[in-house]
Amino acid sequence: MTLPAADPLVSALTVSDLPVTLADVEAARPIVSAAVVRTPTLRAPRLSELTGADVYVKYDNLQVTASFKERGAVVKLARLSPEEAKRGVIAMSAGNHAQAVAYHGTRLGISTTIVMPENTPQVKVTATRAFGARVVLHGEGVGDAEQEALRIAALEGRVFVHPYDDPDVIAGQGSMALEMLEDAPPLDCLLVPVGGGGLISGMAIAAKGHSPQTQVLGVEAALYPAMWTALTGIPRDSGGPTLAEGIAVRNVGRLTTQIVRALVPEILLVEEPELERAVNAYITLQKTLAEGAGAAGLAALLSDPERFRGQRVGLVLCGGNIDPRVLAAILMRELERDHRIVSFRLTILDRPGMLGIISTLLGKLGANILEVHHRRTFLDVPAKGTRLDLTVETRDQIHAQAIQDALEAEGLEVLRLGAGGAEG
Amino acid sequence: MTLPAADPLVSALTVSDLPVTLADVEAARPIVSAAVVRTPTLRAPRLSELTGADVYVKYDNLQVTASFKERGAVVKLARLSPEEAKRGVIAMSAGNHAQAVAYHGTRLGISTTIVMPENTPQVKVTATRAFGARVVLHGEGVGDAEQEALRIAALEGRVFVHPYDDPDVIAGQGSMALEMLEDAPPLDCLLVPVGGGGLISGMAIAAKGHSPQTQVLGVEAALYPAMWTALTGIPRDSGGPTLAEGIAVRNVGRLTTQIVRALVPEILLVEEPELERAVNAYITLQKTLAEGAGAAGLAALLSDPERFRGQRVGLVLCGGNIDPRVLAAILMRELERDHRIVSFRLTILDRPGMLGIISTLLGKLGANILEVHHRRTFLDVPAKGTRLDLTVETRDQIHAQAIQDALEAEGLEVLRLGAGGAEG
Repeated sequence: MTLPAADPLVSALTVSDLPVTLADVEAARPIVSAAVVRTPTLRAPRLSELTGADVYVKYDNLQVTASFKERGAVVKLARLSPEEAKRGVIAMSAGNHAQAVAYHGTRLGISTTIVMPENTPQVKVTATRAFGARVVLHGEGVGDAEQEALRIAALEGRVFVHPYDDPDVIAGQGSMALEMLEDAPPLDCLLVPVGGGGLISGMAIAAKGHSPQTQVLGVEAALYPAMWTALTGIPRDSGGPTLAEGIAVRNVGRLTTQIVRALVPEILLVEEPELERAVNAYITLQKTLAEGAGAAGLAALLSDPERFRGQRVGLVLCGGNIDPRVLAAILMRELERDHRIVSFRLTILDRPGMLGIISTLLGKLGANILEVHHRRTFLDVPAKGTRLDLTVETRDQIHAQAIQDALEAEGLEVLRLGAGGAEG
Repeated sequence: MTLPAADPLVSALTVSDLPVTLADVEAARPIVSAAVVRTPTLRAPRLSELTGADVYVKYDNLQVTASFKERGAVVKLARLSPEEAKRGVIAMSAGNHAQAVAYHGTRLGISTTIVMPENTPQVKVTATRAFGARVVLHGEGVGDAEQEALRIAALEGRVFVHPYDDPDVIAGQGSMALEMLEDAPPLDCLLVPVGGGGLISGMAIAAKGHSPQTQVLGVEAALYPAMWTALTGIPRDSGGPTLAEGIAVRNVGRLTTQIVRALVPEILLVEEPELERAVNAYITLQKTLAEGAGAAGLAALLSDPERFRGQRVGLVLCGGNIDPRVLAAILMRELERDHRIVSFRLTILDRPGMLGIISTLLGKLGANILEVHHRRTFLDVPAKGTRLDLTVETRDQIHAQAIQDALEAEGLEVLRLGAGGAEG
């Protein structure tokens, strides 16, 4: 199915005085289509069942660099003049924008330099170099790195590729909505993660033109409510460690704020536990990997399922670059919440055979032991006693309780630790 | 693109005397198309770069129950007579077949009973019940459970749905190849995981008819070489813990062996480390979740990249149901291999301030401490000394070595533990 023609009235009245128009998004599309994966949009039956909405997911984590940033970057790069292309480009990013610019610059034969803060994880530096960029490490944070990028840009005559506040970039990101609206049935709303605002700006322009009944709603991490603050004028604290570092921005764009103000009725703020639940739901139910920012749309849906119940909701899974360590931690934390990993603290007599008795009992009950720690050097343990911390695999809460009951039936004093227990 | 008509000569000479024909696969397809997700087949650029082949992946992990088993199950269920449908069906499975039968049975209003061994993880029991099946737990292993399933089938007049050795099931699985051959450019080969042989049988029949130049190769876990043994007649040990439990079968099917013998030139055997690497490559490079069996095709490619270099290879990512605990362990093990998590054993003087000195040093070097263990009760530690086991996050091998050098420069005795060290 191809999109119906844009409603001319809507275009004329609402969108024509904005810095990027529907015509711009449509003009950018062939450039995107020629160079970027046409990722699938599929119904997500398990997420639909979980949330009560009719959920469609756009899998833009299947891009070569695993994020949507390629869409905007390739439009910007393809439109450089021959002179500009010869001089090369520069960008500042420790994340997905860096890889997008590096990959498509190299593909187009354009020299790329990426400036990253000095503390950028080596894996990101290596990945960006592997896509063919020169990487310059500079300064403590993104502010320092951006200054350095602008300095090198002036010195070497390189074009600075802004990650979001650029009409070509915004127009390129809009291709996401054109594809989704073609591939999914008519959507009641689109939940779009918002960092600097490039993606939602392009998508809102495209949706307004081609599917004006589709509400485009923004989603920010509650710890970084930059666009929410820009639109509402209400001050709100910003900062802290977020799972969604890809949208943890303190300053939104000038162009993007103008567009979002005109076309996006609301910015939803999501808390960290919902971001974590969303990453976990994508991997366990939908078998796909989302980074925190990429899961923000699902997090908004999980935060307020009543609001979206029965609606046809489009989620933009816009990035999949999550640290494996963080992913492993999320998986293990969810197992603790599900009572599939539990920890018990036992106070026992310190004599030979005790661990044998306990571990035989656990074996009979089908509980696999993961960790054992003996602790003797605490005054709240009897002098002839020892404290035993056990971490075991269990099937569920019922199984965990059965194990605790059986240990207590042996006369042992048992305390449940962590999420499922008294200290949780 | 639709498939070209089957080559009549090939069909006539090779396939017509087999228990399932191309016409059977084609007749099953509309049933599959009406009820099962048309999953995408996409080029995998990162896996192509990794392996040197031109890799296309069929994402059948995006099915509702996250595996291909729905294809065969739905054909079997849809073809029951009204009387059979009324009496219901029964299956034996602790895995993907259980969920496939439960989901489509419920969808079609057919009563489903699934027999599972008593030690089946609760999460699988719960998932199967959630899809609407009655679950009966019986016996120690799959042999006992199968006997019980046959007993109940006779008692209650239920149709037994075999997971692979059934013409309808085989015909349904063949839809996988029809879809892939339409969605990908012409493939030099297809690497297909082999358990009982249902999937590869259906796919080989479809490919032989529509794309005879495409080699269909089977892949088994080396620990469970049942089809390899059936075809070669060479005895080989079978058993042991495998990551690919979904294809860990001791007996292949009668029908499937006949078809595979006729149409599949070779069965490749993959070892456990390659299965682990493949699951890891899917998640980190392709951002998609494969269970061990689902990753077997990629494991074969990783085992012998030279053989497939420059070829256009189709991988069937046929299942994504992996235990989150196993996935977390795979991610962490890979970080150890990449020297991004390293453990050091230090022998230090047991006096106040030592840990402060060491951890300050590590902080300056940008190494985040994950775990600290003091060990005093070993005779190989000096009486006035203690042993300190440190696990730290590092950027890479160079960083890990720099940390070791810095610790040694402080006069400390340092031993590197685990994968990266002397004990690895």
